[in-house]
Amino acid sequence: MASSIDPTCDPTLKSFIPVDSDTHFPIQNLPYGIFSPTRREDPRFGVRIGDQVLDLAVLQDCGLLDSASLPDGIFSYPVLNPFMELPKEQRRAVRLLVSGLLREEEPTLRDNLNLRQRALLPADSVTMHMPVAVRDYTDFYSSKEHATNVGIMFRGKENALMPNWLQLPVGYHGRASSIGISGEDVIRPHGQTIAPDAEFSTFGPSRLMDFELEMGFFVGSGSEQGKPIPINQAADKIFGMVLVNDWSARDIQKWEYQPLGPFNSKNFATHISPWVVTMDALEPFRLEAPAQDPEPLAYLRENDRHTFDINLEVEITAEGDDEGLKVCASNFKHLYWTMAQQLAHHSVTGCNMSSGDMLASGTISGPDKGSFGSMLEITWRGTEPVILPGGKERKFLADGDTVAMSGWCQGDGYRVGFGEVANKILPALDLL
Amino acid sequence: MASSIDPTCDPTLKSFIPVDSDTHFPIQNLPYGIFSPTRREDPRFGVRIGDQVLDLAVLQDCGLLDSASLPDGIFSYPVLNPFMELPKEQRRAVRLLVSGLLREEEPTLRDNLNLRQRALLPADSVTMHMPVAVRDYTDFYSSKEHATNVGIMFRGKENALMPNWLQLPVGYHGRASSIGISGEDVIRPHGQTIAPDAEFSTFGPSRLMDFELEMGFFVGSGSEQGKPIPINQAADKIFGMVLVNDWSARDIQKWEYQPLGPFNSKNFATHISPWVVTMDALEPFRLEAPAQDPEPLAYLRENDRHTFDINLEVEITAEGDDEGLKVCASNFKHLYWTMAQQLAHHSVTGCNMSSGDMLASGTISGPDKGSFGSMLEITWRGTEPVILPGGKERKFLADGDTVAMSGWCQGDGYRVGFGEVANKILPALDLL
Repeated sequence: MASSIDPTCDPTLKSFIPVDSDTHFPIQNLPYGIFSPTRREDPRFGVRIGDQVLDLAVLQDCGLLDSASLPDGIFSYPVLNPFMELPKEQRRAVRLLVSGLLREEEPTLRDNLNLRQRALLPADSVTMHMPVAVRDYTDFYSSKEHATNVGIMFRGKENALMPNWLQLPVGYHGRASSIGISGEDVIRPHGQTIAPDAEFSTFGPSRLMDFELEMGFFVGSGSEQGKPIPINQAADKIFGMVLVNDWSARDIQKWEYQPLGPFNSKNFATHISPWVVTMDALEPFRLEAPAQDPEPLAYLRENDRHTFDINLEVEITAEGDDEGLKVCASNFKHLYWTMAQQLAHHSVTGCNMSSGDMLASGTISGPDKGSFGSMLEITWRGTEPVILPGGKERKFLADGDTVAMSGWCQGDGYRVGFGEVANKILPALDLL
Repeated sequence: MASSIDPTCDPTLKSFIPVDSDTHFPIQNLPYGIFSPTRREDPRFGVRIGDQVLDLAVLQDCGLLDSASLPDGIFSYPVLNPFMELPKEQRRAVRLLVSGLLREEEPTLRDNLNLRQRALLPADSVTMHMPVAVRDYTDFYSSKEHATNVGIMFRGKENALMPNWLQLPVGYHGRASSIGISGEDVIRPHGQTIAPDAEFSTFGPSRLMDFELEMGFFVGSGSEQGKPIPINQAADKIFGMVLVNDWSARDIQKWEYQPLGPFNSKNFATHISPWVVTMDALEPFRLEAPAQDPEPLAYLRENDRHTFDINLEVEITAEGDDEGLKVCASNFKHLYWTMAQQLAHHSVTGCNMSSGDMLASGTISGPDKGSFGSMLEITWRGTEPVILPGGKERKFLADGDTVAMSGWCQGDGYRVGFGEVANKILPALDLL
């Protein structure tokens, strides 16, 4: 197992920054993000550790990262992209240095009060930003359980999965401009919808707002146009992962999606968690990916077919309620198509991948009812509403609802987590 | 008519640069592009005039554009985006200055041999680049004739148009990274296809390579997330237009497209003409857009519904042949949904538009057989092959074929044109 060869993942490691056993951000994680210390200061590169943010630009200024031979100012960009493009070895060198500086027995940062004050900031005092300039955004549809559920609802049990679904990782191009981070609000979108049996559509706010529990990965180094990424080199192209809420307006989607796929029903907003967890940190939580039947074509066949054991939860809290309802407990490991397969399939035509591309999984539903990753499935198209702790009923999402997704890998006495992506729905604008 | 108020469009204007009456680039056009004078020099901003390219960075350096109060170095960027974002009045001021400097009676540039040598370069000596950093790319499906043709082939005459088609401009998100310019080659893509009645797909080079004759426009200034662009303000957001060849692998498309739309069948390459023709230059060629029945919903209803009279042609030339075959003569005016409607629909959910977004029309087919904009329609799915002048037969495109699209507005004794987008198909790579 890779954890035995990567000292930064050693479960016995401890930092001088105190953390609880259920923190998502122990010294074994060290995710990257972009933050501003105060509203007046420029965004820069940070690493999350417990309830603190470590300012890498400050560490570089002090020469503490010199041995990694990094480009000047690489941590002062307002996005991770220039760092993501560095060779893997160089990125690993940074991880090793940061891990070393944060260890409880290492005095360099621990005992330098002046440096600590400049380099370590309370996470609740900083402003987070989009971590990555997303070049192109692609959304897959890789959960067999989700595709089956949706298929049963729309086409019946006999034809639930489309014939292509088991043979290729179905996906579509999404809208990159409207991707934002946890904490931003989402405004209920307007659009065209049609009543059952009506001839003409009407215009108004979506009535069937939904979330989709997904995870996404960022491409680190890109590929050249005309040069497919071979399946067994694909994993090396992946920089790290985030939680993704792929907001969906089901009534708009139903009317618009044929024959070219979802468009307005998805393009108004997509939200991600702000801390990008690297593949190095996830390595100890590798699992074999689900067996595939039929066996995929050669360009999708992996020597080392693997996925990750990432617990996922969704909670809905109505405006004014103290308590939310956990509507879903799922796991990334349920996905049928792996990230490597998605990347190999995406590029097999010669489509050039870029540093900063975001590829999302599609809704991650598990086999049981409690593990479904969208309201569409949880309430089975609204036929089985859920009741929030405050007594309110939900078929789909209401204005004022906050949807919070969280995700973490469970180690022995510690977690490596993604924090959360939590966003509130605001009422539709008055467009008149 | 706007030409009477815009002196740069006056058909009687003449430049001291001699042009033929059939040039696409008389003084009335003045399209923008990005070029390098030589391979060693950095890309910069140019204006095409006849067979010459005018270097705007040189003009700005000499102070000849000072009265437009432009940001320093705006013409030294390797993309048009910073210029596209300027207020319309400022962009118009530049057009007026450039038009003035190129007039036959204006001595400033005409009689300054040293300046002429630095600022005017033969178009066939420079290297053209992608003119715009495309933020997001969206492809519509706005030709009723094309959608009907495809519908008849795949679903029969009775159900040719999907019920939503006449009520909203159907579109989908495309792949921005693989957009290139005229002159680049396109490699025949590999992908999954399935034989009729087969249970399992196979992998190999696409056998049904096709072009799609389209036009695209670039968004000049963007919009804020959550703020739809009102239909009657949409036209002002459009910077200019180009020809678009939306390469399509029909056999890959047929197998993959349900239920989320085209993906690999389109993502390997899209090519555009390198000179961006501004809306100012197209103004004299405005036409009323086709009547719509049913009347669209209010957010798609235009006070000043208009399109442009742009002749479009496609020619296919086989490798080694001296002569090509004109397979299509169409016109932009056939499109049912206008650019303003596309932009209003795209953003009505609150989707934020960015400077540099490219929105393409979808295949522009006319009512007659000679005006169909794809091989799929021209050969009616391969059942009616065309014969090239050298005697070769084509159902779809073959390796070595060059597809050249051109487009122009016909004035009285002059043209305002787009040049061409011409690209050759290379054989599929050997992936083993």
